[in-house]
Amino acid sequence: MTTRVSEIGHGGNVSFDAGEASRLLVRLRQRAPRIHCLTNSVAQTFTANVLLALGAVPSMTIAREEVVDFVKSADGLLVNLGTVDPERRAAIELALPAADEAGLGFVLDPVLVNRSSARRELAEACLSRGPAVVRANAEEVAALAGGGDAKGLARRFATTVALTGAVDQVTDGRREVMVRHGHPLMSRVTAMGCAASAVVAAFLAVEADPVRAAAAALTVVGIAGERAGAVAQGPGSFVPAYLDALYRFDREGATSE
Amino acid sequence: MTTRVSEIGHGGNVSFDAGEASRLLVRLRQRAPRIHCLTNSVAQTFTANVLLALGAVPSMTIAREEVVDFVKSADGLLVNLGTVDPERRAAIELALPAADEAGLGFVLDPVLVNRSSARRELAEACLSRGPAVVRANAEEVAALAGGGDAKGLARRFATTVALTGAVDQVTDGRREVMVRHGHPLMSRVTAMGCAASAVVAAFLAVEADPVRAAAAALTVVGIAGERAGAVAQGPGSFVPAYLDALYRFDREGATSE
Amino acid sequence: MTTRVSEIGHGGNVSFDAGEASRLLVRLRQRAPRIHCLTNSVAQTFTANVLLALGAVPSMTIAREEVVDFVKSADGLLVNLGTVDPERRAAIELALPAADEAGLGFVLDPVLVNRSSARRELAEACLSRGPAVVRANAEEVAALAGGGDAKGLARRFATTVALTGAVDQVTDGRREVMVRHGHPLMSRVTAMGCAASAVVAAFLAVEADPVRAAAAALTVVGIAGERAGAVAQGPGSFVPAYLDALYRFDREGATSE
Repeated sequence: MTTRVSEIGHGGNVSFDAGEASRLLVRLRQRAPRIHCLTNSVAQTFTANVLLALGAVPSMTIAREEVVDFVKSADGLLVNLGTVDPERRAAIELALPAADEAGLGFVLDPVLVNRSSARRELAEACLSRGPAVVRANAEEVAALAGGGDAKGLARRFATTVALTGAVDQVTDGRREVMVRHGHPLMSRVTAMGCAASAVVAAFLAVEADPVRAAAAALTVVGIAGERAGAVAQGPGSFVPAYLDALYRFDREGATSE
Repeated sequence: MTTRVSEIGHGGNVSFDAGEASRLLVRLRQRAPRIHCLTNSVAQTFTANVLLALGAVPSMTIAREEVVDFVKSADGLLVNLGTVDPERRAAIELALPAADEAGLGFVLDPVLVNRSSARRELAEACLSRGPAVVRANAEEVAALAGGGDAKGLARRFATTVALTGAVDQVTDGRREVMVRHGHPLMSRVTAMGCAASAVVAAFLAVEADPVRAAAAALTVVGIAGERAGAVAQGPGSFVPAYLDALYRFDREGATSE
Repeated sequence: MTTRVSEIGHGGNVSFDAGEASRLLVRLRQRAPRIHCLTNSVAQTFTANVLLALGAVPSMTIAREEVVDFVKSADGLLVNLGTVDPERRAAIELALPAADEAGLGFVLDPVLVNRSSARRELAEACLSRGPAVVRANAEEVAALAGGGDAKGLARRFATTVALTGAVDQVTDGRREVMVRHGHPLMSRVTAMGCAASAVVAAFLAVEADPVRAAAAALTVVGIAGERAGAVAQGPGSFVPAYLDALYRFDREGATSE
């Protein structure tokens, strides 16, 4: 691959670089995992398009009579708490035990958990079911960590936290990877974080270590964001450029972009 | 028109080519039919934009107290079974008799009917109400045909099946049109098939023969897909290019693209 | 700013031009108001992206147990009546008193109120709660005004009406501003009006006079539409160009576009 030398830091006993992200992406494209996304209505379309551009397959139903069938045959599960209406809540309550039975880890995205007490309770109920990865921003981590930090949150719930921001921090409370990729325009497009969480779920389908899976996902979306930001005139043209960059990532003929 | 010589095949007693698709599109733009879409939440925005780009008018409400009013005054109806939550299910149950009363044919899109038994039952209930056209992919047709093929499915339910894939097959069980247009990137964008089903409903509003209406719809979306694919850098830039191609299809000044 | 001389008309005792719209936009970007949008599922993603491009912050939840928390801490509220399912209806019923308590004006967008009697009743219930601004098209105003015009509607409900069309009319029944900006492709993209209503809510957060706030909003979206229309090949490429134009509006380095 022609990706420039990784700027990903090394912490604890994890060694991770963009080359490993690329190797996992090759595996992802070969397997084309289906990721079932219980996600908010604002993020659904963009999330589906991000997964398709990357090489994964999205499914999105929240209907009670279907969600168990869809989760049991999926290769990954995302639970996103944005716009949690009763149907989505019911879907989550059915999906988590189904995933557990099927031995399927899930990614939790506690969107704006800092804004409402009802949402915080739901996030804590989800945390108690043992997500493989929690993908959140600093405010959301603070709201869940009760004064602690990402490492503390990871330890308390025996999970991996992927805290995204100007620099992303992936930690299971013991090991840590810092991902230094991305572009400011990513904060001007809705559902960018939600879609990144779905990408984490897709990498979890091909890499059992949640720290490596999350680091790979954030590396790929971050580098795609940089490439899109380099050509975009604003957040509008950023979106197609970002999806193109995910699709073209390491593909033949796409390296000269 | 400057569209290249049609590659559409001829089968049974149907003669159909891109020229006829163009003539129907002229009629569609003149009448600007309103198509009521009971469609999944992932596909709503893109479907609306596809209809608007083409020259039709979308409406999308699923609210019980409104759906009958909207269907009765519509020129076409799409019933798409992706993300069938209780509200959408109730809307479908109200919309189908209302369409029947109004003499309005409907298009059924049994999205991922092969994935869940609940969805299959709902699809069969819809089939028994006599859709004008069923737009589906090969796996969906197989799930509904019970071992049969598109022709068998069409005959069994006295409907027209528009099976989309690398080559599209439109058949009422007796007549058959093959549509050989499209682009691989179409499978990398969510809701592309869902939106094509809405386009079939729009052509049904201006052409009573379901085989010709579906063939025209798939010809137009297929050619638009080819034009978009020729300029796109990936699935991101494909979307605006596809909508532009639908809008510019046969318009003056758009033929040199 | 380099925006050309405003073509905004002057009526009653209101003097308003694009320069004032620009000054209010500077304030909007400084304050980055959070606008809670109870809006239809078709419009959610585009509306969020329009607000983000402009410099505001969207939130969108309709869940009963959350909506009061979100509204009370918001800087603006949009109530859009497209796709009014029971959850959205319940959310509206909770949000309006919460906004009233918090002293927060709201923008009402009575989408397609002319199409269904149920929707008209709901729109009238919302009107009776005193929206700061009603953003609607001619057919919607006619349906609500009962034979009257925008001025009559504004007087009857002691509100400001922002009637959008080829020329936009903003009036509180006494004062009037005409906004002569925009582009025909805006009618070929879904949710363009819905998103404009959210922009009105964002300007209301930084300008207490509803007539000036609505005029500023329609001026900014209209000029952004003109800039996008000048470079777009159709409604597909219009969307990213429009979001870019909102983002770049009066920004350094963006004036030469």
